[in-house]
Parts: sequence; structure tokens; C-alpha cells
Amino acid sequence: MIQSFVFSDGKLIGRDLELQALRLVGADKGLIVWVDLDNPTDEEIKAILEGVFQFHPLAIEDCVTPSSLPKVEDYENYLFIVTHAIDFTRSEKFASTELDLFLGKEFLVTFHRKPLKSVQSMIDRVTKSVGVIARGPDRLAHGLIDFLIDNYQPVLSELGEELEEIEEAVLAKDSGEEFIGEIIQVRGDFSRLRSIVRPQRDLIDRLARGDSKLIRPLLLPYFRDLRDNLARIEDSAASYHERLLMAFDIYLNKAAFESSRGIKFLTALTAVTLPAVLVGGWYGMNFVHMPELQSPHGYYWALGLTIVSTVLMSIYLKKKNWF
Amino acid sequence: MIQSFVFSDGKLIGRDLELQALRLVGADKGLIVWVDLDNPTDEEIKAILEGVFQFHPLAIEDCVTPSSLPKVEDYENYLFIVTHAIDFTRSEKFASTELDLFLGKEFLVTFHRKPLKSVQSMIDRVTKSVGVIARGPDRLAHGLIDFLIDNYQPVLSELGEELEEIEEAVLAKDSGEEFIGEIIQVRGDFSRLRSIVRPQRDLIDRLARGDSKLIRPLLLPYFRDLRDNLARIEDSAASYHERLLMAFDIYLNKAAFESSRGIKFLTALTAVTLPAVLVGGWYGMNFVHMPELQSPHGYYWALGLTIVSTVLMSIYLKKKNWF
Amino acid sequence: MIQSFVFSDGKLIGRDLELQALRLVGADKGLIVWVDLDNPTDEEIKAILEGVFQFHPLAIEDCVTPSSLPKVEDYENYLFIVTHAIDFTRSEKFASTELDLFLGKEFLVTFHRKPLKSVQSMIDRVTKSVGVIARGPDRLAHGLIDFLIDNYQPVLSELGEELEEIEEAVLAKDSGEEFIGEIIQVRGDFSRLRSIVRPQRDLIDRLARGDSKLIRPLLLPYFRDLRDNLARIEDSAASYHERLLMAFDIYLNKAAFESSRGIKFLTALTAVTLPAVLVGGWYGMNFVHMPELQSPHGYYWALGLTIVSTVLMSIYLKKKNWF
Amino acid sequence: MIQSFVFSDGKLIGRDLELQALRLVGADKGLIVWVDLDNPTDEEIKAILEGVFQFHPLAIEDCVTPSSLPKVEDYENYLFIVTHAIDFTRSEKFASTELDLFLGKEFLVTFHRKPLKSVQSMIDRVTKSVGVIARGPDRLAHGLIDFLIDNYQPVLSELGEELEEIEEAVLAKDSGEEFIGEIIQVRGDFSRLRSIVRPQRDLIDRLARGDSKLIRPLLLPYFRDLRDNLARIEDSAASYHERLLMAFDIYLNKAAFESSRGIKFLTALTAVTLPAVLVGGWYGMNFVHMPELQSPHGYYWALGLTIVSTVLMSIYLKKKNWF
Amino acid sequence: MIQSFVFSDGKLIGRDLELQALRLVGADKGLIVWVDLDNPTDEEIKAILEGVFQFHPLAIEDCVTPSSLPKVEDYENYLFIVTHAIDFTRSEKFASTELDLFLGKEFLVTFHRKPLKSVQSMIDRVTKSVGVIARGPDRLAHGLIDFLIDNYQPVLSELGEELEEIEEAVLAKDSGEEFIGEIIQVRGDFSRLRSIVRPQRDLIDRLARGDSKLIRPLLLPYFRDLRDNLARIEDSAASYHERLLMAFDIYLNKAAFESSRGIKFLTALTAVTLPAVLVGGWYGMNFVHMPELQSPHGYYWALGLTIVSTVLMSIYLKKKNWF
Ligand SMILES: [Mg+2]
Ligand SMILES: [Mg+2]
Ligand SMILES: [Mg+2]
Ligand SMILES: [Mg+2]
Ligand SMILES: [Mg+2]
Ligand SMILES: [Mg+2]
Ligand SMILES: [Mg+2]
Ligand SMILES: [Mg+2]
Ligand SMILES: [Mg+2]
Ligand SMILES: [Mg+2]
Ligand SMILES: [Mg+2]
Ligand SMILES: [Mg+2]
Ligand SMILES: [Mg+2]
Ligand SMILES: [Mg+2]
Ligand SMILES: [Mg+2]
Ligand SMILES: [Mg+2]
Ligand SMILES: [Mg+2]
Ligand SMILES: [Mg+2]
Ligand SMILES: [Mg+2]
Ligand SMILES: [Mg+2]
Ligand SMILES: [Mg+2]
Ligand SMILES: [Mg+2]
Ligand SMILES: [Mg+2]
Ligand SMILES: [Mg+2]
Ligand SMILES: [Mg+2]
Ligand SMILES: [Mg+2]
Ligand SMILES: [Mg+2]
Ligand SMILES: [Mg+2]
Ligand SMILES: [Mg+2]
Ligand SMILES: [Mg+2]
Ligand SMILES: [Mg+2]
Repeated sequence: MIQSFVFSDGKLIGRDLELQALRLVGADKGLIVWVDLDNPTDEEIKAILEGVFQFHPLAIEDCVTPSSLPKVEDYENYLFIVTHAIDFTRSEKFASTELDLFLGKEFLVTFHRKPLKSVQSMIDRVTKSVGVIARGPDRLAHGLIDFLIDNYQPVLSELGEELEEIEEAVLAKDSGEEFIGEIIQVRGDFSRLRSIVRPQRDLIDRLARGDSKLIRPLLLPYFRDLRDNLARIEDSAASYHERLLMAFDIYLNKAAFESSRGIKFLTALTAVTLPAVLVGGWYGMNFVHMPELQSPHGYYWALGLTIVSTVLMSIYLKKKNWF
Repeated sequence: MIQSFVFSDGKLIGRDLELQALRLVGADKGLIVWVDLDNPTDEEIKAILEGVFQFHPLAIEDCVTPSSLPKVEDYENYLFIVTHAIDFTRSEKFASTELDLFLGKEFLVTFHRKPLKSVQSMIDRVTKSVGVIARGPDRLAHGLIDFLIDNYQPVLSELGEELEEIEEAVLAKDSGEEFIGEIIQVRGDFSRLRSIVRPQRDLIDRLARGDSKLIRPLLLPYFRDLRDNLARIEDSAASYHERLLMAFDIYLNKAAFESSRGIKFLTALTAVTLPAVLVGGWYGMNFVHMPELQSPHGYYWALGLTIVSTVLMSIYLKKKNWF
Repeated sequence: MIQSFVFSDGKLIGRDLELQALRLVGADKGLIVWVDLDNPTDEEIKAILEGVFQFHPLAIEDCVTPSSLPKVEDYENYLFIVTHAIDFTRSEKFASTELDLFLGKEFLVTFHRKPLKSVQSMIDRVTKSVGVIARGPDRLAHGLIDFLIDNYQPVLSELGEELEEIEEAVLAKDSGEEFIGEIIQVRGDFSRLRSIVRPQRDLIDRLARGDSKLIRPLLLPYFRDLRDNLARIEDSAASYHERLLMAFDIYLNKAAFESSRGIKFLTALTAVTLPAVLVGGWYGMNFVHMPELQSPHGYYWALGLTIVSTVLMSIYLKKKNWF
Repeated sequence: MIQSFVFSDGKLIGRDLELQALRLVGADKGLIVWVDLDNPTDEEIKAILEGVFQFHPLAIEDCVTPSSLPKVEDYENYLFIVTHAIDFTRSEKFASTELDLFLGKEFLVTFHRKPLKSVQSMIDRVTKSVGVIARGPDRLAHGLIDFLIDNYQPVLSELGEELEEIEEAVLAKDSGEEFIGEIIQVRGDFSRLRSIVRPQRDLIDRLARGDSKLIRPLLLPYFRDLRDNLARIEDSAASYHERLLMAFDIYLNKAAFESSRGIKFLTALTAVTLPAVLVGGWYGMNFVHMPELQSPHGYYWALGLTIVSTVLMSIYLKKKNWF
Repeated sequence: MIQSFVFSDGKLIGRDLELQALRLVGADKGLIVWVDLDNPTDEEIKAILEGVFQFHPLAIEDCVTPSSLPKVEDYENYLFIVTHAIDFTRSEKFASTELDLFLGKEFLVTFHRKPLKSVQSMIDRVTKSVGVIARGPDRLAHGLIDFLIDNYQPVLSELGEELEEIEEAVLAKDSGEEFIGEIIQVRGDFSRLRSIVRPQRDLIDRLARGDSKLIRPLLLPYFRDLRDNLARIEDSAASYHERLLMAFDIYLNKAAFESSRGIKFLTALTAVTLPAVLVGGWYGMNFVHMPELQSPHGYYWALGLTIVSTVLMSIYLKKKNWF
């Protein structure tokens, strides 16, 4: 689906033009146009990207093929920007959608394969606001990326909650269930999140440094603001990741702790019952001449010896912390 | 609450002006003003930050929204600085409060949501000193940040003490209590402390390098001094952190050491009682024809065999270090 | 085997020239030549590299001796480029083949010891296309390296599949087989892949930055595209590598988990049978005077005591999670 | 205690001047003075640092307050340098003493809280040599720091010996004593040593690069020589540190090795005695009708069965490497 | 021992001059001289380094004192270069010998304490070749360092073989011997090798960048070639080192795997013999009234119960993978 928006003096003056009209608007100095390609057909791609705007074939290739690497490429008359929106639901888990932007002096072309909340929010703002919306496509691009980054926060919160559940499970003494699979998966999610945020931040940082004449100086503080937001997200993700690694280390050592408890218990059992086992075994011997067996108080002596030894052993074990 | 202080030739000449007066003082070349906003209402924020000083909307947004990332932003006529004060009490644990500064050629505006010891100390110095206090707002800013950083030291000491307790507990042989939760928490505190100190140090380093015309060359050594203090704190925190990781590693291996001791004890017990158990079991057999049982000295032979084997086994175990 | 291709105005106009003709074409401004040396004899090497093109002896040495380090060396009139093609089959495993390029203003010389798919693909394109193929040897070089990098992808996929098998085996509860050898080997493959991709990327990055006058500005976006592809491959390899290390850690701790389960089972067995063993041993004693033995219900009391103790012990173990 | 030395044309011409004389010497172009403050009183500090030389208050503050961070600060007319001497004795362990230097064009002021061997060596050289000693204070400063760094070597050797003892203890099979405390302490010493040497090296490197006009070009190779010595010390310390970490890893796994040996022994004991225990227990049963017991050769059959099973079990265990 | 070689127009024209002659040759523009000091006496050192060439005292000190740190120092009229040759034999292990070079416009002075294969090879080339050998001392220096680096390769191969033996031993299931000492030693060798190669590479890289006018542009590709060789060696050493660390990790976990096997075997033994032990113990009781004992088929019931329980237990263990 293709939508287009035409602005004059910062105000929306037209929508959803025909190809021919788009070409005229492009030629007109002073008119600004935003074209959004939402999962377009191959013909639409060809008509808009090649036909109307005549972008570089490599930029078009990068645009239509999915890529996990955000980047910004400077093609003299326009910037080609690859960013990623992220969605996260407990059931469907982590998913990222590419959003590509061609940012020129008087046009913005956006491209995505799935409907994006951030694009919809921008369309709403553009269509529902009155008064000045954007005097340049750089303003539109900033707004889009701002919405997009705002949508990172809930993902981070969700991952943070999963981390907390893992930490609780790891610290729980009686937790014997196997949540190693979940640790591995959350670790993968964090590493994917960071691999999206880090280059995104570098990208925005390059835009914010004012190297490109396609972004007006006036807008640089706004791009620095985006970079700060990304820095904050990256920071949180890094600290979550560190906590996850620690939980993983503790998890790996859980078995050793359980073994230790098992061995202590086994050792204590063996030690405490040892006197009874030894005495019972010894006086079970069938020698014809075994004076203790014939002695009238033999049994009571044996019983006493057993009890005393068992008590002494218990005291020793208690002192040595065996139970 | 809003307080304001007006200086002329470095001396305090007025306090707590009305909005209208603030605006006049701002226009007057030669008068210097410090406005402190301590948990201000939304109207006060609007009146001062937007109305009187007309700061950039993004700076105002960064100021009023809480952020964990220290930074300095250069808006031509003023610097916008985000710093963090830290408080730490064993009961309430680690807490950081944001202190934002707008530093201009002839004004300083500070903003915080909670009362800060460092701000109060600065107000005390300003109101109780006589003679020259500050010939420029950069001097005031330095004083504030100096107080703020001085307050980091007790936090570090407190964390250092917690670390020592953990180290002692880890090294104690009989410590069976579960202090893993405490390790995790102290580790988190250290990582929060370092995540505040590191960017703070970069920030102060940028100010100390003399890039901004809003800080007079005269004051650069003072900002370098702040940077040194932060470097020292970061250094200590890093070495504490390393010790903590080592304690964590030792803790994780405690279970293995305890298992080892348990196994040694169990093995020794089993080995030492083996002769008695074997002899007792063997001569407990009920075969009608078992010559040893009928022999008049059979029992004494068995007893002797048991004692000799047990003694030999004990010597062997002693030599092999089994107990 | 030596093949050569002559282009004029971007179109193929001749093939497989004699040495003498090659020298003439080299002298002719406007004619472009690509010479491919596929496992050439020493005489062919001497004739072409030393005789016709008179390359620097060090470049020739680097060309003919195998090397695992990609690099680009600038010899004023030509670039000497060392790249590596990789092949991977489950049976023959990982193998890399060096492809060396001498890239001049009007010539491209390629050198390899084994037939390469990427070179064959380029020859096919050159011979089967009609119309403009390449107006410069930089275009030919780009095409070759592009094919070569395209061939990295299947290797990565194959390694990814091996990694998944390892992960499954590591997570499987009952997997007792020793696949440590496979982990070590895959780890080695990843490290070899990364040691090829990383310098390759730096190399292409240097070419893409436009430092050399031998690559026309027109082609720079194409070399940046290659660099992006390599970055993507490196990225995937890094994340696979991280997963592998995690699987390795889990594998190393498998033994501890199995020990833990063994100890739990052993402890439970010992504890549950303890009452029967103790009672059986005790009342197996042969004292003449042992009242319980003579009592008519002695056996039933003993039986009851055993059953009750066993049940209590089972409940205790259940509660303590011992089985 | 304050000592001072006056040089003219590189020769010592006076000692221990009064304050008034010091001021005159300072004003005299051509006379060079070295003032050493060895644990001075507050009055002496004030008189010399503030009174005679009028150093910047921040430099004085840094000088008198102890600091663990070496640094060099450029105050136009003089350099302020913070270095650290180290002493190490097995009984008193690691201790560092701060040595501060103010290096001007014609003066050197040194400050330390404890007597320093390096300062004493320099005083000896200055007072006992005849002929030219130092034509500039930079020569004196170099000599002092050279002596100071020479004194690092014995500390490193001592730590190296402690490391070797730890390594031997870790590798010894029968070492059961708990030397973990010693490991932690030596690790702390290494980390303190490195935290002193690393910034010291950066400091000397900055001086050696010739950025300051207070160090004559003639002396730069001498400062590079100091930097080399520090690099060598840092290198050794780093390699010692790596060995220490490895010893620590081995130590942590010692328990696992001992457990393994214990379990092997226990398993072997249990397995070898199993036949005797089973036969003994089984034929200890009291069934009235148990044909084996009545058989005249029953006991010998049982004995034979036990011996044969025990031998077979021993062979099996031997083959499986259980003892 | 001192040897000297004089070249004119790249050809050897004289050998082993007297001191006086050396001085004359030095003064003569156009004559090039190489002086090799092979473990010289103190007098020879003084005569040549101080007397004839008048090198800087610090360079001479660095030359005569052994040092483990390669470096290059620029003393205007000459470069002072410290390199290291390495030898490795399985019996004598790793040893490095320092080779120092003073490289001037028309002289090369080399210094070493032990005879070096690389120096001997260079002498052979110089004395046995006919025709042009070296038109400058930079050519001689390159040749020497080239030979020296060529001798690194066998060391690397030897270490690689030791690593493979360690890997095999680590992976062998039945390897119980203690080769931890060997791991530690090989790890030390690798770390020594890398600590020599890394700074050597930086050193050669600095020479290859053409910063010094003492190395002619013509020779730069030759020094880049040396740098490539060192990079290759460093690369291999790094990958060997990584494999060694992995082997070390596996070694450390061997004990845990052996414990696991021991525990499984012990648990299986205990479980399988449990029915016989329990039944044997129970019916060994001596109660007067125990109906089972009197029953005529009691023994056969007991035997059957034991066999059935043992079989069931075996099946259970098999299913749970206990043996
Ligand atoms: Mg692409
Ligand atoms: Mg794309
Ligand atoms: Mg993705
Ligand atoms: Mg979205
Ligand atoms: Mg926002
Ligand atoms: Mg913001
Ligand atoms: Mg804020
Ligand atoms: Mg905070
Ligand atoms: Mg405070
Ligand atoms: Mg302070
Ligand atoms: Mg201070
Ligand atoms: Mg670890
Ligand atoms: Mg080469
Ligand atoms: Mg090659
Ligand atoms: Mg290879
Ligand atoms: Mg190929
Ligand atoms: Mg491609
Ligand atoms: Mg492509
Ligand atoms: Mg581990
Ligand atoms: Mg200070
Ligand atoms: Mg100090
Ligand atoms: Mg200290
Ligand atoms: Mg000293
Ligand atoms: Mg020295
Ligand atoms: Mg372990
Ligand atoms: Mg030296
Ligand atoms: Mg030397
Ligand atoms: Mg050495
Ligand atoms: Mg050699
Ligand atoms: Mg060579
Ligand atoms: Mg480790």
C-alpha cells in the first residue's frame, strides 16, 4: 500500500497523489512530500523507487532485501537510512521489522514490509494536527524515528521482567525445574536487542553530528535527543545482560550446591547409623566360643555401647556442621 | 520551592526575587544570578525555564524527566548539565538524585526533585560567607559539583565495608548461610555507582578541557581537580568490583569444597569400618560345616584379623591424606 | 591454466591471447585485459607476473606462497589484493582457497591454486553476457569479490546448523555421548571463518573509502555494499560464536548435573532402606539373652517399626526434594 | 624537615638556606635550587609552598593530601608531578609513599611524608659528587624518579617469589592447607602495583614526549629511558598477574579433583567387597530349609564364589581405571 | 668477538678492520661498514660503541643490559633497535637472545651475547655472494631481521605440536596422568612468544611506515613484508593460545566428569545389590517366632523375591541411563 502526503509551508495540502502528480511535486521547489510504502508490490517499488525518485540501484536492493544491520548511506542528493522497529510479546517473542528511509531535501520515502505502529502514529499526527507540522522532511524523519525508539521501551521492560523471573528461579532453593532453555532464549533476545540498538545509536550519532547538509542545524538537538534515548536503552540492556550472565553462572553452580547437600546428608546418615550397623554385624557372628554372647548382660552392654557411640558421633557431626 | 541569589562584583546583593525582577536582573550586564528550583511545581517550571530564561524545549524536557545518564549539552548561550548526587544508607540502600544545571555567562539555574545536601551546603556558603563569593556562575557551578562529588566518598566507604563483610563470610569455613542475595545486590550497587561515575567523569573532563567559552580559563584547574576526584572514586570502585567478582567465584566454589570434605569423610568412614563389617558379615553365615566357627580360638582370630586390618587401613588412609 | 579476456568500451573483444599479444594490449591505452592464472606452472607465473606485468618481487612472492592473511598492498601502479574463498562440506569440512588480484588502471590479474566457483561465475558472466560488461578492471574485481563473498553464506548456514545440533545435544537430558570433539572442531571452524572475514572486511573498507585512484568513485558504493555484506556475515558469526561458548559452558557443567542426580538417587536409596537394614542387622545378633527375640510378637513389632520408619523417612525425603 | 641545595653552573654552592635567602635565590637568574620537604610542619608548608614559591592552591592541596593516583599537571611556570615510591617487606607487606615534585625552570621542590630511599640517594649524589651535578632542575627530577623506579624492582621480585610459592602449593597433590587468603592478598598487591605503575608510565611518557618547555630536549632520552623501565615492570607484573589468575583457577578446581579421587576410592572399595558382603549376608539367613547351608561343601562353594567374584570385579575395575 | 665488513658500491671490499681503520672508513662518504659484536669484552664495547661510533650513553646501556622488550629509538643520526631471536628445543625449552642494531646512514652495528643463526646466515650471504649485496646498511638490517623472523616459524611449529599432544591427552577418556604442569609451561611459552612478537611487529611497522630517513623508500615494501610475516606468526600464536585455554578448561572439568562416572557406577552397584542385601539382612534376624523362616518354601520365596526385585531394579536403572 502506498500513501503520500504533500506539505507546503509546513502544512498538509494534499494526500495520496498519482504517480504523475508525485513527479510534478518532486520538481516543484517548495513543496515537500512524504511517500510511505507499506509492503508494496514489485510494480509499486519499481514505479516509486526507480521511476519517480531514481534512487541508486544498490540503495533499492538494500531497501527491498531484509537486513539485520542498521546503517546510513550518503548518496549526495539523499540519505538512505536502515532502521529497525521492535515488537515483543511473550507468546510470539522478539521480532524486528525493518524501516528504510530515503531522506532528501524535499522528500521522504519510507519503506516497510509490515504495518508499523510508529508510521501509523506519524500519519495520525500529520493528518490530525492543524497548523505547522513539518517544514522539512528531516522533521518528519525525526518524528518517525522518535516514535520508533519510544517503542523500544516496552520491549526492554518485558525482557527485564523475564530476567527477574529467572533470577528468582535461580535463587530459589527448591527450584529443580529446567529453565536453562529460557535463559538461553532471553540471552539471545538481549543480544539481538543490543545488536540492533548499538548500530542504531552510531547511526543517529552520525546524523546528530551535522555532517549531512540534508539535516538542518535547527534539528540537530532533536537528533541528539534520539541518541540520548538510545544510549539510555543500551545502558539498561547492558546492565540487564550482566545480571543475566550472573544468573547463568549461579544456575550452572546449582548442581554443585545440590550435590553438596546430598553428600552431607548421605555422610551424616552413614555416620550416625554406623555404631548400630557395626555392633549388629559383629554380634551376628556364629562363633561357638564368643564370650560376650553368653554373658547375661551382653546385650545390654552392646545396646549401651551403640547408644553412647551414636550420641558421640551425632555431637561430632553437629560440631563439624555435617547437618 | 524557588530560591534566587543575585551577585554583583562577586558579592551577594539580593535574594529570592520576583519573576519580574529576575527578568530585569537577567537583562542587566554585570549582575549574576543563581536560581535554584527545588522540586518546583509545573507552573514554576514553566515560568522560570520557559518564561524567564527561554531554554530550548529539549533541554527543559531532559531537565524535568528523570534520567540515569549524566551529560553536558552545549546550547550556544548556555550549557545544560545533568549530574547525579548519590545517597546510600544500609537500610534504604542506594539512591541517586538528578541535579540539572543551566550554566550561562551571567546566570546559573539548578533543578532537582529532592532536597540535596550539596545544594544546601552551597546556599550556606553563599549566604554565610562575607566578601567575594563568586565572580561568575562557573564558580558557583564548580562549587555545587564539588560538594556533590564529595558526597560520593561515604557511599564508596559504605560499599567497601559491605564488600569486606562478604569477603569474610566467603572465606569463613563454617559459613553455610545463603548470602548470595547480598552479593548480587552489592554487585548491582557497584555497577550503578560506576555507571554514574564514568559518564560524570567524561562530562567534567570535557568541561575541564576548556572547550566552552562559558567556563573561564581561570577555573579550568578547578574542574581538572573535580575530574581527578572522580578518577580516584572510579579507581576505587573498579578495584572493589574486581574483589567482589573474586569473592563471587570463591562463593560459587564453596559447594565443591564442602562436597570434597564430605566425600573424604564418607570414604574414610567406609574404609575404616570395612574390616569389621566384612568379618562380621562373613562369620554370621549359618553353614553347618564352617570349621572357623567351631574352632575354640576362632573368635579371637577373627577379632585380631579385624583389628589388624583396621589399623593397616587407617595407616594407609592417613598416608593418602584421607583424613 | 591461463585465460585472458580483452575488453574495449566495456565489451569483450578477444580471449586467451598469446604472451606477445598480451604485452601489446598492455601498451595500448583504452584496451582492458583480465588474465586469470588457475594453478599456473612456474614458467607461466614467471612469464606473466614477472615478464608481461613486471610486478614487484615481494608481491609475486606473496602471491605464489599460501597465506592465511587477507591484505591489500598499494604498489603505485597497481593494488595487490589477497582474499580468501571458502568452501565447507560436512565431510571435507572447512577449506579456504587464496585468490590474489593485481588491479591496475587497465588490467586485472587473478591468481589461484584451485578452481574457484566465483572465478568461474565471473568468466560465465563475461563470456555469456552481451553488451557492456565492464568499463574498468575495478568493475571486474568488484564482481569477482562479490561472487566470492556470496559463497560465504552457505558456509555460515552449514556452521549454524552444526551449532544447532550441538545445542540440542547439550540440552538433551539423556545425552551421554561424547561430542566434545565436535564442539572443539566447530569452534575452530568459527574462529577460522572470523579470522578470514575480519581482515577481509577491513580490506574492503579501505578500498571503499576511495583512497586508491585505481578504483573509480562511481564504484565506491559497490565496494561499500561488499563491506556491508561482510559486516553482516561477521555479525552472524560473532553471535553464533557466543552461542557456541554458552553451549560449551553448559556441556562442561553437564557432569556436575549428572553427579547431582546420581547423589540424590544414592542418598534416597540409602535413606529409605536404612530402617530395614538397621532392624535386620540388630535382630540378627546372637546374644543368648535378648528379650525381644524371645517375645512372641517381637517380629511383628520389628516389622511395624521398620515400616513406620521407612514411611516417615520417605515423607521427609519427599519434602526435602530428594526424589 | 626542610633541606635545600643551591647550584650554580651545575655545581653545589650552598645548602639549607633561610627563607629569606631562598627568596633571593629564586629571584636570581642562573642559580638553581632544590628544596626537599620531608614530612614538614604546616607552618613550613605554608612558608615554602605558599610563601616562597606561591604555587596554585589546588596544587598545594593535591600535594598535602594523600592520593593514590600519579599525575602531572601543567601550571605554566612549573609542572606539578605526583609519583609513588613503593616498599615491600614480607612482614609489613605492600606500602606506597607519595612523592610530589614542583618542577620549575630554576627550581625543584619535593614533598613527602616519610623518608624516602630515592631522595636520600639523590641527596648523597648531590653532596658527595664533585664537579658538574645538574645544570637544571629537570636533571634532578630525572635522577629522583630514576632512583624511585629502581626501587620498584625488588618489590616485583618479592611478589614473584610469593607467586612461585603459591604455584607450587597449588600444584602439590597433598596440599590441603587453606592458602586462599594468601592468593587474595597477593592478587591485591599485584593490582595495587599495576594501578601505580600504569599511570606512572603514562605520566613519564607525557614528560618524555617533550610537550613541556620545562624539560630540555637534551633530557628527553633520559625520560624515555624511565618510561622503558616502567614498561618493563608493567609487563612483568601483567605476566605474573596472568599466572596468578591461572593458579587461582587451578586452586578452585582442586576440590573437584580431590572429590574425584575420593569417589573413585569409595567406589572401588564398595565394588571389591561387594561379593563378600552379598554372600555373607545371604547365607546369614535363618531359613529352616536352606539346602546350601546343610550341604557339607556349602561353605567352600560360597568361599570359592566370593573369591572368584572378587577377583573378576578387581580385574574389571582395573580395566576401567577405577584404581 | 668482533667482525667487520666494508662495502663500496654494494660490494664487499674489506673485512675485520683495525679500530683505526674503522674510524677512517666511518669518515669516508661512500663506504658502508657493518660491525658485528658477538659477546664482546667490556673493552671492545667501550672501544667500538663509545670510541668509534660515539653512541648515546643510554643507547649503549640499553644495548649491553639484557631486556625483554623490543623497541626502536631514534637518535637523529642513527636508529637504535632492540630485537629478539628465539630458539626452542624440547629439552632446553624456550630461550630468547637479544639482538641490538645501531642503524646509521653508512654503518650498521650489531650486538648480541650469544652466537645467532640469523647473523651467521647474513655473514655467509655477505661473504659468499658475488656482485651487489647491499647498497645501504638498511638492506643489511632488513636481511638480518628477515633471517631472525624466519627462525620464529620452527618455534611456533614446535609449540603447535606440544599443544596437539595436550589436546589429545585432555580428550583421552582414560588419561589420568597429571599433565597440568605441562599445560602451565606451554601457556607460559605462548605468552612469552606473544610478548616478543607483538612489540616486534609494532617496531617493524614503525620502520615500514617510512618515518625515518635512515631507511630508503625503496626498502619500505621489504619492511612491510617483515611486518606481514610477524602478523601471521602473531595470528597463529593467538589461535593456538585460544585452543590452549579451551584445553585448560576441559582439563579442569575432567575431574567432574570422572566423579560423575564414579557416582553413577557406585549408585548402580548399590541399587542392584539392594534387594539381596535387604532380604539377606532381614531373614538373618533371630526372632523365635518368624513364620517365614519356618515355612518350607520360605527360602525359595525369598530367593524369588530377590531375583525379581533385582531384575526390576536393573530395568529401571537401564531406562534412567544409570549404566
Ligand atoms: Mg547491499
Ligand atoms: Mg533492507
Ligand atoms: Mg532481527
Ligand atoms: Mg513500531
Ligand atoms: Mg521523545
Ligand atoms: Mg531528551
Ligand atoms: Mg532530567
Ligand atoms: Mg539511578
Ligand atoms: Mg548531596
Ligand atoms: Mg572537593
Ligand atoms: Mg578539592
Ligand atoms: Mg566465571
Ligand atoms: Mg611476503
Ligand atoms: Mg599468497
Ligand atoms: Mg585456512
Ligand atoms: Mg568460490
Ligand atoms: Mg552480492
Ligand atoms: Mg549486491
Ligand atoms: Mg565455570
Ligand atoms: Mg585535588
Ligand atoms: Mg598528595
Ligand atoms: Mg597506596
Ligand atoms: Mg624509595
Ligand atoms: Mg636507570
Ligand atoms: Mg565446578
Ligand atoms: Mg635503559
Ligand atoms: Mg639490551
Ligand atoms: Mg626472554
Ligand atoms: Mg637465530
Ligand atoms: Mg622472507
Ligand atoms: Mg574460566
